[in-house]
Amino acid sequence: MTARFDVTAVGNAIVDVIARCEDSFLTVEGLTKGSMQLVSQDFGASLYTRMGQAVETSGGSAGNTMAGIASLGGRAAFIGKVADDQLGEIFAHDIQAIGVHFDVAPLIGGPSSGRSLINVTPDGQRTMCTFLGAANELVADDIEPALIEQAAVVYLEGYLFDLAEARRAFAKASGLARANGRTIAFTLSDSFMVDRHRGALREFLRTQVDLVFANEDEVKSLYETDFDSAVRTLGGEVKLAAVTRGAAGSMVIAAGETFSVPAAPIEKVVDTTGAGDQYAAGFLFGLAQGRPLEICAKLGGVAAAEVISHVGPRPQVSLKDLAAASGL
Amino acid sequence: MTARFDVTAVGNAIVDVIARCEDSFLTVEGLTKGSMQLVSQDFGASLYTRMGQAVETSGGSAGNTMAGIASLGGRAAFIGKVADDQLGEIFAHDIQAIGVHFDVAPLIGGPSSGRSLINVTPDGQRTMCTFLGAANELVADDIEPALIEQAAVVYLEGYLFDLAEARRAFAKASGLARANGRTIAFTLSDSFMVDRHRGALREFLRTQVDLVFANEDEVKSLYETDFDSAVRTLGGEVKLAAVTRGAAGSMVIAAGETFSVPAAPIEKVVDTTGAGDQYAAGFLFGLAQGRPLEICAKLGGVAAAEVISHVGPRPQVSLKDLAAASGL
Repeated sequence: MTARFDVTAVGNAIVDVIARCEDSFLTVEGLTKGSMQLVSQDFGASLYTRMGQAVETSGGSAGNTMAGIASLGGRAAFIGKVADDQLGEIFAHDIQAIGVHFDVAPLIGGPSSGRSLINVTPDGQRTMCTFLGAANELVADDIEPALIEQAAVVYLEGYLFDLAEARRAFAKASGLARANGRTIAFTLSDSFMVDRHRGALREFLRTQVDLVFANEDEVKSLYETDFDSAVRTLGGEVKLAAVTRGAAGSMVIAAGETFSVPAAPIEKVVDTTGAGDQYAAGFLFGLAQGRPLEICAKLGGVAAAEVISHVGPRPQVSLKDLAAASGL
Repeated sequence: MTARFDVTAVGNAIVDVIARCEDSFLTVEGLTKGSMQLVSQDFGASLYTRMGQAVETSGGSAGNTMAGIASLGGRAAFIGKVADDQLGEIFAHDIQAIGVHFDVAPLIGGPSSGRSLINVTPDGQRTMCTFLGAANELVADDIEPALIEQAAVVYLEGYLFDLAEARRAFAKASGLARANGRTIAFTLSDSFMVDRHRGALREFLRTQVDLVFANEDEVKSLYETDFDSAVRTLGGEVKLAAVTRGAAGSMVIAAGETFSVPAAPIEKVVDTTGAGDQYAAGFLFGLAQGRPLEICAKLGGVAAAEVISHVGPRPQVSLKDLAAASGL
């Protein structure tokens, strides 16, 4: 069946609250630099009072990736949960405005829309404290079958592995995808998430996933070994994997073969938020277009370079134009 | 009496919703480029559905100016009205986070917090459609006398001239300021606002204002004449005036004498939102510190140059450091 969407993603619908801070702020607050931790509403509210002035932008890992695919000219859909409030309206507006299909009904009478308090240090690293709120209420019923069945690739956000209900939603999505011969992609999202769910994750990857996105820390955490051994193991478990290595570019493992692609050049790293998300966007777009894997990885690099050159996790210029300018 | 604050401002508490657009979008939507128009909630909601993905940042003209003064190391207070909702929390957080005193109780059970839908064209010009919401509900009782009596300068935002209740608040503020020997500053805000209230505005400036901020369009609209004549007339009506001229810098008129100060150099104009607000911040900070008027105007230029070099109406780096780096 021809696909109506290049990619449909299931992820946390989140609005980012982004402030700059000094490294000392992280120390005082007891936050681990570069990590994502889930926090309660009270913890978040308290931390917020001590953060600097912020900007708000739609975020969420898989939501960012779908925005990137739309910016590349691809057809994307997103499944995630917001509340019936102002932040929820902002999330829905932004993802629809860039052309992503999004029509999950907002949660009424429950917690407010999820937000991620992101503190960016002068080196551009982001440290995230996420209050999931309504995003936590995503259930299997929110997975509209047609959106899965009609997508060439179904992309699942690893952060949802923390949530029992969302894992049931994943099971439904991956089952539908498998039944329709669709590719199932998964991102490991965060090394601490990997640490919390190592066994279940390995089983999930082995049995239900075709394509894995990871960064160095995540893949090392997954197999509790050094990078080279971890990559070898990963290559034996899934058909295809793409591992990002920051300034060192990315590595693609396909059918036992491994090759590296250098990072796209960039003047200054302003805010690394969304780098992995945009890499996935470029890679998935290329894949859905049937491009060679090396081109997929390069498209990922171009998209990632754009997003780390400014504050905010989604592209601010047309990635389609950028890719064309890079000869891709 | 020694002043507890350098400046206390009365203005619209607004959250900006900033999206990029092509010039053709303004044409299709029937919006006058560079203008600010007040819109209903319905008009705003409808326009929003057609705008691109956006970022949200605290805004409001006088609120931006107070943030600028705090960034310069000054002591500022702000009086304006938000609702008891998520955008109101964002506004309150941001202005307090930068060190501005703000403690007006949020409006409960009325309209939602005000927001300005700002479309920025490729040339960096901003076109604003503002739904005032709770900001429209500012009343004289919200003017805490101590905040006015203890400020060296009281700064009134011209946009509030559209609102009958807010004009009563202005009268209270300017009366208290006069009784305590404080300087009363006023910004004309927008040439269309000037056009709507020309007679009342001239009377207000003549009788209650010491210092006027304006741009070229506003001062020409105020006296319905050419720029040079308008500036001459303005100089005869108030003790002190500062007129901004975009890339041509600014002009200061004091006791019949006029002098010009060139604009601070800038690589690229990204978004002009907040340029006039930050000019006022630099000027007012210099004035409160007892600096010569030429330095005040230069401080204004440095602050304005910072804010137009990025998206968003408030400084993103320390203006105090920038001013020091410019030898001010």
